[in-house]
Amino acid sequence: MKDAAQIIRTAHDMADAARAAILPLFRSADLITNNKRPADFDPVTQADRAAETAMRDVLARQRPDDAILGEEFGGSTGTTGLTWILDPIDGTRAFLCGAPSWGVLIGLSDGQAIRYGMIDQPYTGERFEGGLGRARMTAPMGDRDLRVRGGVGLDAAVLMTTFPEVGDAAEHAAFRRVADRVRLTRYGLDCYAYALLALGQIDLVIEAGLQPYDIAGPLAVVEAAGGIVTNWQGGPAAEGGQVVAAASAHLHEQALALLAG
Amino acid sequence: MKDAAQIIRTAHDMADAARAAILPLFRSADLITNNKRPADFDPVTQADRAAETAMRDVLARQRPDDAILGEEFGGSTGTTGLTWILDPIDGTRAFLCGAPSWGVLIGLSDGQAIRYGMIDQPYTGERFEGGLGRARMTAPMGDRDLRVRGGVGLDAAVLMTTFPEVGDAAEHAAFRRVADRVRLTRYGLDCYAYALLALGQIDLVIEAGLQPYDIAGPLAVVEAAGGIVTNWQGGPAAEGGQVVAAASAHLHEQALALLAG
Repeated sequence: MKDAAQIIRTAHDMADAARAAILPLFRSADLITNNKRPADFDPVTQADRAAETAMRDVLARQRPDDAILGEEFGGSTGTTGLTWILDPIDGTRAFLCGAPSWGVLIGLSDGQAIRYGMIDQPYTGERFEGGLGRARMTAPMGDRDLRVRGGVGLDAAVLMTTFPEVGDAAEHAAFRRVADRVRLTRYGLDCYAYALLALGQIDLVIEAGLQPYDIAGPLAVVEAAGGIVTNWQGGPAAEGGQVVAAASAHLHEQALALLAG
Repeated sequence: MKDAAQIIRTAHDMADAARAAILPLFRSADLITNNKRPADFDPVTQADRAAETAMRDVLARQRPDDAILGEEFGGSTGTTGLTWILDPIDGTRAFLCGAPSWGVLIGLSDGQAIRYGMIDQPYTGERFEGGLGRARMTAPMGDRDLRVRGGVGLDAAVLMTTFPEVGDAAEHAAFRRVADRVRLTRYGLDCYAYALLALGQIDLVIEAGLQPYDIAGPLAVVEAAGGIVTNWQGGPAAEGGQVVAAASAHLHEQALALLAG
């Protein structure tokens, strides 16, 4: 991709700006919350808004001609064919609990596919990036290349999702068909689960009800690490909805078959 | 307590030694696992054993006359009336998933009560300690005093437990009676949930099937932060089993009543 080095630098600058905006508010007692959808408990914090604003400011300075799709402030058009897809805090409930499994998500679409993405966890200082030739974690405890693990069969696999209910009743039942076949199912890690998949620590992530900004960054990271991310029918995952991410083609096929019933 | 300063120093030395033993093995691909209870999926890693050995070595040098109760290597008697209660890795499943919600747990009993305890998360570098006049988190992102939050009613409370099934069917049903009344229930954080309670981030932790070494350290940390930890009948929690930890007396009473049915 043209300007790949500049694009990558911009993404890191955006994540740095989001970190600076969010960290003073993490575990602070005076978060200003504002439910966008009162019936659905989706807390939006001051940090969420401050972080997206900070990322948009970086784009305005460095790449003003790219389009933006952000969770908090919606879309803006561009002229380059590139769209930055931003979720300033994925996992706002984890954030409100003080648990460091939320993340800043950044994805870059060229209109055909997500070409680059990032999962950043400001409190642990871990940054996971994938695409444009990169598949890398940088972290205080040591950097490492991202690579999914292979050779794990379904009965030995570790599966993660955020909420035990997963989605509606049918989605929950479909999820259980997979969960009942794996070695271990764990809950509650939000976007961090995709990072663990890319790190080769777990084997499957299955979720439902995702928005495009929930999955763009994780999708790029997992694919760059050698994993597979689709919707539950095996089609593109970039639109969100029902998503399955797998460490291998074999696991992916088995998960799709079980999800289909 | 006599020797409080030395006891605290020993506890920190033990946690430092456990960190050094564990961190090289966290997220390593070649963990040696050994199921103690094959039917119950309780992975024991090389790190678990190395960490308890390292902590016992510290005690042998600094406080050889204290008794020890450890998850991995059982009990040894002493002459001081003090017993160190050690869980080298609480949350071995989280550990095997690469998720930094496991912890090194250290508790000190004088035969009457847990007088001091620690929850240490080596990867994030967070250390939570309570008792003997202390209630403190030390962490790379900043130290802070531990203090539970008050003034949160049940309908606004955040509840955590590790496994959605909690325990047996009756325990699950009792847990659901509380979960159905709170604002938010989150899963999967193991001992880290007690640390978040002591940090004033969440309001309730309810678990079942705990061992004494699972709760000694967390109990001391939560109590030092002003919280209440008992079993589901309101009695002492130090023996493990069914445990409820609450940020306030009011929440604790409500949780006990709902758990009782």
